[in-house]
Amino acid sequence: MSNAAPACPGFSFAGIVAGIKKHPRPDLGLIVAEEEVPAAAVFTQNRVRAAPVELSEKRVAGGLVRAIIVNSGCANACTGDRGMTDAQAMTHYAAKAVGCDEKRVLVASTGVIGHPLPIERIVEATPRLYAAARPDGLDDFTRAIMTTDRFEKRALQMVPLGPKTRARIVGVAKGAGMIAPNMATTLVFVMTDAAVTRGFLKKALAEEVHAFNEHSVDGDTSTNDSMFLLASGAAKNKPIEGGDKGVAFRQGLKDVLVDLARQIVRDGEGATHVVTFEVRGAENAAAAEQVARRIGSSPLVKTAIFGADPNWGRILCAVGNAGVEIDPRKIDIAVGEVEIVRGGVGIGAEAEAAAHEVMRRGEYIVRVHLHGGRGEGRHTTCDLTTDYVKLNADYRS
Amino acid sequence: MSNAAPACPGFSFAGIVAGIKKHPRPDLGLIVAEEEVPAAAVFTQNRVRAAPVELSEKRVAGGLVRAIIVNSGCANACTGDRGMTDAQAMTHYAAKAVGCDEKRVLVASTGVIGHPLPIERIVEATPRLYAAARPDGLDDFTRAIMTTDRFEKRALQMVPLGPKTRARIVGVAKGAGMIAPNMATTLVFVMTDAAVTRGFLKKALAEEVHAFNEHSVDGDTSTNDSMFLLASGAAKNKPIEGGDKGVAFRQGLKDVLVDLARQIVRDGEGATHVVTFEVRGAENAAAAEQVARRIGSSPLVKTAIFGADPNWGRILCAVGNAGVEIDPRKIDIAVGEVEIVRGGVGIGAEAEAAAHEVMRRGEYIVRVHLHGGRGEGRHTTCDLTTDYVKLNADYRS
Repeated sequence: MSNAAPACPGFSFAGIVAGIKKHPRPDLGLIVAEEEVPAAAVFTQNRVRAAPVELSEKRVAGGLVRAIIVNSGCANACTGDRGMTDAQAMTHYAAKAVGCDEKRVLVASTGVIGHPLPIERIVEATPRLYAAARPDGLDDFTRAIMTTDRFEKRALQMVPLGPKTRARIVGVAKGAGMIAPNMATTLVFVMTDAAVTRGFLKKALAEEVHAFNEHSVDGDTSTNDSMFLLASGAAKNKPIEGGDKGVAFRQGLKDVLVDLARQIVRDGEGATHVVTFEVRGAENAAAAEQVARRIGSSPLVKTAIFGADPNWGRILCAVGNAGVEIDPRKIDIAVGEVEIVRGGVGIGAEAEAAAHEVMRRGEYIVRVHLHGGRGEGRHTTCDLTTDYVKLNADYRS
Repeated sequence: MSNAAPACPGFSFAGIVAGIKKHPRPDLGLIVAEEEVPAAAVFTQNRVRAAPVELSEKRVAGGLVRAIIVNSGCANACTGDRGMTDAQAMTHYAAKAVGCDEKRVLVASTGVIGHPLPIERIVEATPRLYAAARPDGLDDFTRAIMTTDRFEKRALQMVPLGPKTRARIVGVAKGAGMIAPNMATTLVFVMTDAAVTRGFLKKALAEEVHAFNEHSVDGDTSTNDSMFLLASGAAKNKPIEGGDKGVAFRQGLKDVLVDLARQIVRDGEGATHVVTFEVRGAENAAAAEQVARRIGSSPLVKTAIFGADPNWGRILCAVGNAGVEIDPRKIDIAVGEVEIVRGGVGIGAEAEAAAHEVMRRGEYIVRVHLHGGRGEGRHTTCDLTTDYVKLNADYRS
């Protein structure tokens, strides 16, 4: 065991090469808690759900978790009855290695849909996986869950719980394509050393996942999206169940989730820009979010971002397609600090030239004001690029 | 006037260079009937609607039309009060040239959103436009309404109205991007020499446009979509108002619309494949269409089509995202004549290799059977290619 600082007291992590991916890269990961810990999770809203999603959802309902075993390189989705048998086998052998009840082990998979898992290799590798687990092994774990990701996604927030007590919330995630969060997306693992009641953990995740869902890459919600939250209690605080400490914990959790979501968008397949659409003045928050999401899902808006083209007509067109009552003659649009549309009409070539300069930045904000109420919402997305198309036309070949 | 056969008796057509487009290409078109004729039209469901859409919708409610003036190179959308003034001016000067009431003149525009029309050039060119109108001028008209189109879209159906009488239905359309029909899309002009009552014309268009709407390129519904249907009565038949003749007329109209829609998809920006997703076994037709449309809108499915990759996991994933109750374990998928998924599970590498061969064809059908009812629906779309992205990143630069 290394002497490096632990990623999150109370947990150990591992990531190894098990031979699931075509090329020898880390593809099997483990999170193991020192003892059973309270846990919460949210899963994809896609009606086609992978076997590990079905199994983990059932298991997490028990409220206590000891370990999560995760593989990349194969989604174990659309694999029939064998899919569930394989997912159960993964938890069975992980439990055997850890020495716990398999009901306390969750499982997640990510990769190509429709191929069965090479389950023998996973079973064979599991003792080695557990042997590799250590408190500072989070980087290994993070690399083991990557697929088309270009970089690892990690986030950390410190939560003040008293004059001398600070808990940490550590999150890791994977994801670069098939990203359109709907309740949860991709694979996200969040650990905290705070003591938190199971009830509050569940509530906090259910509510703060909303901020994570305000991000997308390509509008396709995957079959395997899962987000897990585990609390070790190693910080020895009085278990959080609401109040001021609850507010602080939720804020920390939200910050970790938004941080991870932005990293996923930044790593969006082929992405060269990250843009947040902030919509104000809608009838209510839901309408504002719907408009923001529609703008951020328009292929014509996303290609204009790629070309740094302040083609605000496409933004207005997307607003009109959002299924929300709006008055086009009231809409203002600003790109970064540059206003380009006032009252639904373009301000002129000079403003567009200035907006073009903003759009050459890697990240910026587009503000859309509907002047029709007080609802606010946002959506963060990346551009649609030639590389996105190339990557996804060639994915399996 | 030429001696060539008229495109549709009772109508003359023109298309000229008016200097609206950056480069000197035909950009102003006219359809003029010999006398006022019954007309019907459907318009975009986008809540942001161009001035010509607003004006034509109001005018066509009158039921009789003498002429339609159309420009390409500028959508006259999101142009404020000036937009309506300009649209009215176009009809005013067209009416003056034709010698009719301006209330009997409709107008349509297509091109970039957010730029005002160069109205002086249009006004100046209008007498020349009218002078150029002739019965065999439909090709000139068709060229004048093109923007990013690579080829002209025309369709013709002959409708038997009696032992010796056959009427024609002639349609032309433009469109290659921002294509996601919702009631109507792009610009479509359909003329018939049949005599048809105004009421039946309206009903036929409202119902048959559905088949047109089962097509998309990129999922963005434009601000300017308009579809017009004019009946000259030059065939001298007893005006159609239903019955057998009505059925024959509607079938002909539907065939013309589907023919035009397929041409638009085939000319989809950057497109290299045209694919129809046929969904069966849904609870009802609406659910089947929703599933078909969702599959045909998924960027991951559309890039897989580009790469001829039989990545059926993406199709199943899109089915699961359609918001329709389905049982993933019942789903069958076939690419062309090759079954690749049975009961939600892949059939194997050999089937996929055969499916890959089908996917190298320019056009093919993908059949998805949900085994959950009798509802059927379809959606035709093109692939998402590197050229689509390039074309739309560079559109205005």
